[in-house]
Amino acid sequence: MAVYFYGCVTLDGYLAAGDHSLDWLYETGSEEETGYREFYSRMDVTLMGRRTFRELERAGDPGAVYPDTENYVFTHGVLSCPGFTAVSGDPAEFVKGLGPDRNIWVVGGNTILAPLLDRDLVDCLIVQTAPVLLGAGVPLFAQGEALRRFRLEEVKKYGQFAELVCVRERT
Amino acid sequence: MAVYFYGCVTLDGYLAAGDHSLDWLYETGSEEETGYREFYSRMDVTLMGRRTFRELERAGDPGAVYPDTENYVFTHGVLSCPGFTAVSGDPAEFVKGLGPDRNIWVVGGNTILAPLLDRDLVDCLIVQTAPVLLGAGVPLFAQGEALRRFRLEEVKKYGQFAELVCVRERT
Repeated sequence: MAVYFYGCVTLDGYLAAGDHSLDWLYETGSEEETGYREFYSRMDVTLMGRRTFRELERAGDPGAVYPDTENYVFTHGVLSCPGFTAVSGDPAEFVKGLGPDRNIWVVGGNTILAPLLDRDLVDCLIVQTAPVLLGAGVPLFAQGEALRRFRLEEVKKYGQFAELVCVRERT
Repeated sequence: MAVYFYGCVTLDGYLAAGDHSLDWLYETGSEEETGYREFYSRMDVTLMGRRTFRELERAGDPGAVYPDTENYVFTHGVLSCPGFTAVSGDPAEFVKGLGPDRNIWVVGGNTILAPLLDRDLVDCLIVQTAPVLLGAGVPLFAQGEALRRFRLEEVKKYGQFAELVCVRERT
């Protein structure tokens, strides 16, 4: 089992503006040139929070965005979207229950990522940083205080995004 | 006049741990391979806060670190260090008073950078991101809410640091 975060963030560390809007991202330009397709082809499962799913719904057809993965949405509500399953509880326990040999992509948001970081379950952070400042919003990192060291494996420039591939150091 | 920020930050956006310690940075490895010398040779003035100066003092001889620049420390206290001048008041007004044709490096910390970002006086952000999470500490970015777009000019990998060169878009 390997847990990945892969996603875009502003230079000051925000996933989204205070109103959960992703306008900053849509205006930064296309990601076509990134390694996204290769990344997605390796994933078996996606995990996301309720707000991330809502953004997907707002943008169109969620099933068309993640067609080849099992997709789980952490929500206390009901979901009626083919290909997506509502789950609840602790993301860390959920991930452990998925069994071995699965590549799990934490699409967002920080309420899913934080408990996984806190339990040291994140193996790889692939972050695309855009040269944009928001000054407020939804931060990517919301885990508790603890020094965690990854290894910077690769740095790439894709248009207006700097992609950092950070792999967890296991000691 | 051009104002630069140049410095290291964790992947989750911290300059220093909660106790202002830079242990995370010292343990990440040498910066010898970076473009620091070339950068410093272009600077005329450094600006820093009281805490950044204190860290410099703790590490040794501040004058040996910044020998070729005019160095200003924002503090209400008194300074007795050759090559360093105590100043106070609004960093934005201070910078404007430095006159044209000066390259100004904001060494740190966020109490100096934030008012300069708020007044849109920062021309270039050169950020070296290390693959380290702290979860708490002194954030680099503490400016107010406002969308500010830079241009990502260059991305480099120096050892365990990803350097992003971001230039302010002037419209």
